[in-house]
Amino acid sequence: MTTPDTGRPLSHWAWGYADRFPDRAAREALAQQLTLFLGLEHLPVREPVALENAHLPSPRVPVPAVLADICTEAPAARAQRCYGRSFPDMLRGFLGDFAAAPDLVCLPRTEAEVVDALRWAQAAGVAVVPYGGGTSVVRGVECDGAGFTGVMCLDMRGLHRVLSVDRASLSACIQAGATGPVLEAQLAEHGLTLRHYPQSFEFSTLGGWIATRAGGHFATLYTHIDDLVQAVRMVTPAGVWQSRRLPGSGAGPDPDRLVLGSEGAFGVITEAWMRVRPRPVFRSSVTLSFPDLMAAADAARRVVQAGLHPSNCRVLDPREARLHAVSFDGDALLLLGFESADHPQVPLLEEALRVGRDAGGTIKDGPRHREGERDRGGAAGSWRQAFIDTPYLFGALVSLDLVADTFETACTWDRFPDLHEAVVKATRGAMKAACGKGLLTTRFTHVYPDGPAPYYTFIAPGRPGERAAQWAAIKAAATEAILAGGGTITHHHAVGRTHRAGYAKERPQPMGAVLRAVKHQLDPAGILNPGVLFDGEG
Amino acid sequence: MTTPDTGRPLSHWAWGYADRFPDRAAREALAQQLTLFLGLEHLPVREPVALENAHLPSPRVPVPAVLADICTEAPAARAQRCYGRSFPDMLRGFLGDFAAAPDLVCLPRTEAEVVDALRWAQAAGVAVVPYGGGTSVVRGVECDGAGFTGVMCLDMRGLHRVLSVDRASLSACIQAGATGPVLEAQLAEHGLTLRHYPQSFEFSTLGGWIATRAGGHFATLYTHIDDLVQAVRMVTPAGVWQSRRLPGSGAGPDPDRLVLGSEGAFGVITEAWMRVRPRPVFRSSVTLSFPDLMAAADAARRVVQAGLHPSNCRVLDPREARLHAVSFDGDALLLLGFESADHPQVPLLEEALRVGRDAGGTIKDGPRHREGERDRGGAAGSWRQAFIDTPYLFGALVSLDLVADTFETACTWDRFPDLHEAVVKATRGAMKAACGKGLLTTRFTHVYPDGPAPYYTFIAPGRPGERAAQWAAIKAAATEAILAGGGTITHHHAVGRTHRAGYAKERPQPMGAVLRAVKHQLDPAGILNPGVLFDGEG
Repeated sequence: MTTPDTGRPLSHWAWGYADRFPDRAAREALAQQLTLFLGLEHLPVREPVALENAHLPSPRVPVPAVLADICTEAPAARAQRCYGRSFPDMLRGFLGDFAAAPDLVCLPRTEAEVVDALRWAQAAGVAVVPYGGGTSVVRGVECDGAGFTGVMCLDMRGLHRVLSVDRASLSACIQAGATGPVLEAQLAEHGLTLRHYPQSFEFSTLGGWIATRAGGHFATLYTHIDDLVQAVRMVTPAGVWQSRRLPGSGAGPDPDRLVLGSEGAFGVITEAWMRVRPRPVFRSSVTLSFPDLMAAADAARRVVQAGLHPSNCRVLDPREARLHAVSFDGDALLLLGFESADHPQVPLLEEALRVGRDAGGTIKDGPRHREGERDRGGAAGSWRQAFIDTPYLFGALVSLDLVADTFETACTWDRFPDLHEAVVKATRGAMKAACGKGLLTTRFTHVYPDGPAPYYTFIAPGRPGERAAQWAAIKAAATEAILAGGGTITHHHAVGRTHRAGYAKERPQPMGAVLRAVKHQLDPAGILNPGVLFDGEG
Repeated sequence: MTTPDTGRPLSHWAWGYADRFPDRAAREALAQQLTLFLGLEHLPVREPVALENAHLPSPRVPVPAVLADICTEAPAARAQRCYGRSFPDMLRGFLGDFAAAPDLVCLPRTEAEVVDALRWAQAAGVAVVPYGGGTSVVRGVECDGAGFTGVMCLDMRGLHRVLSVDRASLSACIQAGATGPVLEAQLAEHGLTLRHYPQSFEFSTLGGWIATRAGGHFATLYTHIDDLVQAVRMVTPAGVWQSRRLPGSGAGPDPDRLVLGSEGAFGVITEAWMRVRPRPVFRSSVTLSFPDLMAAADAARRVVQAGLHPSNCRVLDPREARLHAVSFDGDALLLLGFESADHPQVPLLEEALRVGRDAGGTIKDGPRHREGERDRGGAAGSWRQAFIDTPYLFGALVSLDLVADTFETACTWDRFPDLHEAVVKATRGAMKAACGKGLLTTRFTHVYPDGPAPYYTFIAPGRPGERAAQWAAIKAAATEAILAGGGTITHHHAVGRTHRAGYAKERPQPMGAVLRAVKHQLDPAGILNPGVLFDGEG
């Protein structure tokens, strides 16, 4: 399988481009480094099961004649879209287990073909999984099709054009299947940018971002894609859900907010009017050191509570800074950055610096002020590169007999110290029980005046054949600590199927029945991504 | 009737405090001034029908024994809560017509009593209108009770306490019945403020703001109450809808966004955790002149698109500036203000001033920079006083045989010039046809990077006995022009019953059935504010 835009082959099991999977030498070096980090003697370097030797069930339904032009049952197409790209997803793919593969893959090129596909699927009793980049880490695109005659993966990447740009309103109408680079390249022709950079940016799509309420580039203010949506168009079995292009409204419950987070259960997003902006020209950044995570967290809190809106406001604990090779000094870091297309950010950075110093910070790097070219230097630059490379690293970890993953939440500031302590205790305890030991690192991905969004990474030694169970034990312990501590089950990874039980505990009690009622109106046959967000039971 | 907080009597038909209704001399002076503005010969000054001579139907249901402690059928209580405070509402009240009065008024003091009231009403087949300040201008609290045995007004103002303050997270848990001054006084004890100042601030309540997605103090960024809500608690016949306190989340569709804008149709909001902030210390403001509205609008667009977030960014057309006695020079104005509790706003004001001058603006007043005390001077100060006084003015207009109202919308910048031209043409045409002539003024209440929220005021000579029809003709023409021009039926006045037909045209086609399905889940007997947002038909 190749990406529609670049033609460059994608891995059928690991993150992203196949040729970006670290080669044997690179993985041996990584194994070396991690034995050190984890205090192990040795980490074996294994190879994935080749696709031709993998287990892939035969399709349960043939390609329908009416969709013959846009459907395929090719094994590579089905295997590649079988799972998302969480650690357990990649583990199954590495081991050659594609039991949950969709029966057919549909690649519509127009909205009319999306409508055709839904009509056929409803009549044939086939479940439909709306599919973008397939980068879900919560089993958002994995459907077993129980109760259906089969499963169709509806890959939206054929709809990838910027259809219209309204320069006066800084808005663009973009098709849902456009990936980050594809839509940015088209916007760049107009000197504009969406400026939404989730870690999956290279592969994930606008439709996927909207369906999962993706977290993006901005650490403050415009944190979620939610705030960048001006209007959405979604095809549902009950008709087209098209909201009006509006900068703001007070007319009833916001129609777009019912689509945001619907994870493909209510309809297939086909296009959206998005709020775009001129490309930034002025950038100011600084990195501050603190003795520990809580001190850096307090500084981040003070910066956002001062009414400053840094585009970057990342907190790294000492382990995170070391893991990503940003700092080896054992200090916690606060990375602050401001950007603007219109005016220098020096005064704002200076205010943030004052607040950060008042909170006990010392300058680690910077301040840097740039006009025009992008700033790729310093601790912030190292951090950005690590950010892009990390998902590939996880593919490599799978090949080293490790158990690893990331999980994230958000909570109010008053709860953060206790929540963090409980999460660390529970996760370390579970790693110890399941794996003997393990490494846990923490950062903040986004920061609000009323609370942070902490993000955790764990790596532990695994035992062949037991890694799925080891992962599940650690994940369960972390999840329980997050919910008990008052956090959300997910700040920007979405619910999918992995977080379904936690989501049921988090949401208002009567909301489960409300979600089912909404789905019943829009998708009466229940064919759309069944099992995501909630199960079919009342 | 008196307000629960001040004990000061409220008018039974006009805006706000009874003693603030302009006396005869003041209204004679106003009549004098308006004959000039409107080019009329004379405006008679009439007196409202006294409550004891008004038409108020007998209650259809007796006060139930189980709610005897908290219910009343006193005529004054029922008349005062019969209508909202739009022009046609006040016109009916002025004429002594209280045909739509609720049968009984319930004044719960606790959430348990709210639950009791709903339980009784559901069993008795009585419709329930959740009620805050009663300041709706869209018939949001007027329910005829068709199909029910009666109507209960559920006045929430007995629940008016700030229950908890979390200083670390800048959050406060506030009961839904607290009015603006009542909640601000309690927050002030902690040096905090919600900083939400709709024009109805003195009387409207937190619950009403949330239910109607009220527009507030900030002209940019935090424009609607939506963005200040951290978590909501809503009592529904299907159970308590309580969202988790979170600074942000990506877990499914946002539960709070389904409550925001629900206008009492899904449940009774009893309390909410709100995002609060320290009281501002640093204020910078400037007023710029432009030759006309479009030039001032363009400057406002450039300011917000530059990524500046002024707390005040009001545009006044020359007529609006004259009507509110801010300027008599025939120029359009742009009022800009920045505020912060943490740092001086001089650099931000200077950037905005640069942008405004580049757009052709000249300084009319300021710049002013203040630290500490509130700035009440200059054009912005005159404007603020007029803002607070205007609703009282409309009560006076009712007594002068005039037809008047305000209406508002929001649209993208690309559509604004055509929409504005069409609205002006349609409204002036309708005033000419219905009234012979009339005055129309325009301002922006809120401004977004992707579009403005224009706000219109009209005043025209009315004919006794025909004013309701004259108003309806003008309102219909304006509404049609707004919807045809791509605007929203309401930016912050809500849907209520007045905008129900327009809202049906604006929202996504399948959304009507979805709203009914949500209501059916939460309020299976359909007792909650029936007729608001949508009618009962499929």
